[in-house]
Amino acid sequence: MSKPLPHDELLIALQLLLGDAGLLRGGDLSAYEQDWRRRYAGRALAVARPSSTEQVAGVVKLCAAHGVSLVPQGGNTGLVGGSTPDASGKQIVLSLSRMNRVRSFDAANLTLTVEAGAVLQSVQAAAAAEELLFPLSLAAEGSCSIGGNLASNAGGTQVLRYGNARELCLGLEVVTAQGEIWDGLSGLRKDNTGYDLRDLFIGSEGTLGIITAATLKLFPKPVAQMTALAACDSLAQAVQLLSLARARAGSGLTGFEVMNQFSLGLVRQHFPQLQQPLAPCPWTVLLEISDSESEAHARGLFEGLLEAALEGGLISDAAVAESLPQSRALWHLRESIPLAQAEEGLNIKHDIALPVSAIPSFVRGTDAALAQAYPGIRMVDFGHLGDGNLHYNVQAPEGQPAAEFLRAHEKAINAIVYDAVMAHSGSISAEHGIGQLKREELVARKSPVAIGLMRAIKQALDPQGVLNPGRVL
Amino acid sequence: MSKPLPHDELLIALQLLLGDAGLLRGGDLSAYEQDWRRRYAGRALAVARPSSTEQVAGVVKLCAAHGVSLVPQGGNTGLVGGSTPDASGKQIVLSLSRMNRVRSFDAANLTLTVEAGAVLQSVQAAAAAEELLFPLSLAAEGSCSIGGNLASNAGGTQVLRYGNARELCLGLEVVTAQGEIWDGLSGLRKDNTGYDLRDLFIGSEGTLGIITAATLKLFPKPVAQMTALAACDSLAQAVQLLSLARARAGSGLTGFEVMNQFSLGLVRQHFPQLQQPLAPCPWTVLLEISDSESEAHARGLFEGLLEAALEGGLISDAAVAESLPQSRALWHLRESIPLAQAEEGLNIKHDIALPVSAIPSFVRGTDAALAQAYPGIRMVDFGHLGDGNLHYNVQAPEGQPAAEFLRAHEKAINAIVYDAVMAHSGSISAEHGIGQLKREELVARKSPVAIGLMRAIKQALDPQGVLNPGRVL
Repeated sequence: MSKPLPHDELLIALQLLLGDAGLLRGGDLSAYEQDWRRRYAGRALAVARPSSTEQVAGVVKLCAAHGVSLVPQGGNTGLVGGSTPDASGKQIVLSLSRMNRVRSFDAANLTLTVEAGAVLQSVQAAAAAEELLFPLSLAAEGSCSIGGNLASNAGGTQVLRYGNARELCLGLEVVTAQGEIWDGLSGLRKDNTGYDLRDLFIGSEGTLGIITAATLKLFPKPVAQMTALAACDSLAQAVQLLSLARARAGSGLTGFEVMNQFSLGLVRQHFPQLQQPLAPCPWTVLLEISDSESEAHARGLFEGLLEAALEGGLISDAAVAESLPQSRALWHLRESIPLAQAEEGLNIKHDIALPVSAIPSFVRGTDAALAQAYPGIRMVDFGHLGDGNLHYNVQAPEGQPAAEFLRAHEKAINAIVYDAVMAHSGSISAEHGIGQLKREELVARKSPVAIGLMRAIKQALDPQGVLNPGRVL
Repeated sequence: MSKPLPHDELLIALQLLLGDAGLLRGGDLSAYEQDWRRRYAGRALAVARPSSTEQVAGVVKLCAAHGVSLVPQGGNTGLVGGSTPDASGKQIVLSLSRMNRVRSFDAANLTLTVEAGAVLQSVQAAAAAEELLFPLSLAAEGSCSIGGNLASNAGGTQVLRYGNARELCLGLEVVTAQGEIWDGLSGLRKDNTGYDLRDLFIGSEGTLGIITAATLKLFPKPVAQMTALAACDSLAQAVQLLSLARARAGSGLTGFEVMNQFSLGLVRQHFPQLQQPLAPCPWTVLLEISDSESEAHARGLFEGLLEAALEGGLISDAAVAESLPQSRALWHLRESIPLAQAEEGLNIKHDIALPVSAIPSFVRGTDAALAQAYPGIRMVDFGHLGDGNLHYNVQAPEGQPAAEFLRAHEKAINAIVYDAVMAHSGSISAEHGIGQLKREELVARKSPVAIGLMRAIKQALDPQGVLNPGRVL
């Protein structure tokens, strides 16, 4: 008998540690090896599916000892290739999917402690079962996991009021690159005992440690939620409307989304069954108010706000939802934009952030620069205006094959967009992260001092490069 | 002529870099060498007072080259000995006090960029001048600086609604231990481009980098603020009142402070001119509502809330302020507790945080344990109940000399209190930080994994130990 290869030794040890259900080898591993958009397809040595934090620590120690790197994976719904293995066939995918329990709930402290593999929707449901709110909400909530949400500092539709995933987390449990367990599952709102390890792990995309559990902030459930659409002639008016809405509704303003005429036109074209209450206009704003008093109070707020906006010439028309189903229908319009885009064909996506005040001039200037460089180009501009976050997407001119246009021009278009983002002190990744997709762009565009600090931190916490190599940095 | 000593060389170079106004040597440096409570008195080689970020970077480079360490200092109002030099006479105090300009203001983005030495009150005033709110508010606001607030992640009275200093900061400019300048002055609400350097520097007490400027979040100014006092028989009732107030007022609830009978008794005794609207009771709660609509609306909220609390048996009495001066008077009662304590003599202070749900059992158990160990001991329990943050202070038994009691028993009393804090998953420093005061306690009580991670980060970012050595770690 020949001596087992180191990889065989590792796999035998992992099998012993995790049991049959905990280690997947051979067979169809594609659900773990490629992302859901099929942009990143790799090959894994195996998929480890630990069922406890101790098992995660054991996996990390074994991999580190064998010089094998790990790719942590939650719901595998990311958009930047952060959670799929490379093509070498030598990486282990560490799926947290079996660690999905609610560990504890504290009503008076408004906290919920869950394992990393818990699906976001199940976390929302656990809060709702106690008549409380976990406000993180995004398109993938039916399949993404809270661990992945935290590793990528997810954003979504409620950031304006409740913040990103970072702001919704009080404490973490993390397995380090050395396979040690850091129990930082704090339910504290104030804790100034040393460096902020929590926020360092949040958003590090699995490159500094593996999040295995988190203590999350809950909120009283609003008594009423109400939605309205408003028509603006310009983005500058939409920004003024935001200021007015913030002043009048305070933190009752929980949503402020913007959609350009072309994006809602795509929805009209591909989903004609969806009713659009306003006539086409350059920019449509979706506003949401969450109220701790009553539906009547929310309606009163909306009426006062929209009246003042009409009088002040900030909007030309508006429609307030008359019921919860109508509110949902308005949100559904907004959520249908990515689907309508997909129907129209491949496009070039940008998830960017800007100071809110810079958005009108950014969009005016960049739309014009792109139109000049690529006559007929179609802009799908929409996003979370209240957070300064635009999904600024570029669709090929009508009639041109989308895939071909993308292949030929994506790089040059990205350069135009990202140059303009940097010129307006913006971010090239607002809520989707870096992963593999934007790694080169990050290093090219972030200040060398920042990159140097990040590299020093990575080197300090994961000197062997065990965790998610080739991502972020 | 003898060869100049390395220190002389350094001082000459600093003099050249900073000019006469920028370097203080000899004379009375005590304002920089000791903290305002005179607990930590050191000796500085000199005090550097740079007037620009470039000068800060220059100071750091010179000190690093000469192997001399730096103690960054803002308003020098800290409570843990974090910003005064040691006794060696070999450290340079780096005072940010001359860097106090407002750099920019962005109304539509709700951001203000200021230099680190700006006094908190002047930052609040700059926001107020634009009819906006910078909500960080604490006792030292007339002399503490925003750089120090961020370096220590200050808390204060508005955390319940607006968060700690950390949550109020969008971006930083930092000089690293190598004397490089990181321009992270972002005005973005979403930015997922790499590790969260901002939050690593915030709360690191000047040990990882020197904060030279910050971009801060502003908020619409509430239209009305209203305050009430409520009498509770137990802390458990106060916690239930908090849940009720959160559910009814939502994020309109901006203050929820608690005071025990003895602490308000001290105020009554030492400041008899201050009117106390409620009869003495075990626990008095101060509630504050900030309203974006009107005073009448805030009053309506309060009346509904307090009525429900009375009916539900959560409170036995309540008084709503009838005017802004009355509201201020209620806050003044709360703010007078530390002063009344000081009148009563030295005491043993603890700035602790606990899950809100654990506070009743913590206080019951720890009060009893202390009373048993030290019969006649008097507890000054008050603090930000809404944030789970108690100032849990121990006053010597009546008639016993306070200073002597403190000398004899502080260590043993700290052990009882901190053991109980740890048993309730709390924090030994909620908002004051670690500095020199709690360094040993931190290392003894924080998990070895966390301490290991912190040390690795310190080593990675400041391998020479130039920045604030002997603090935090």
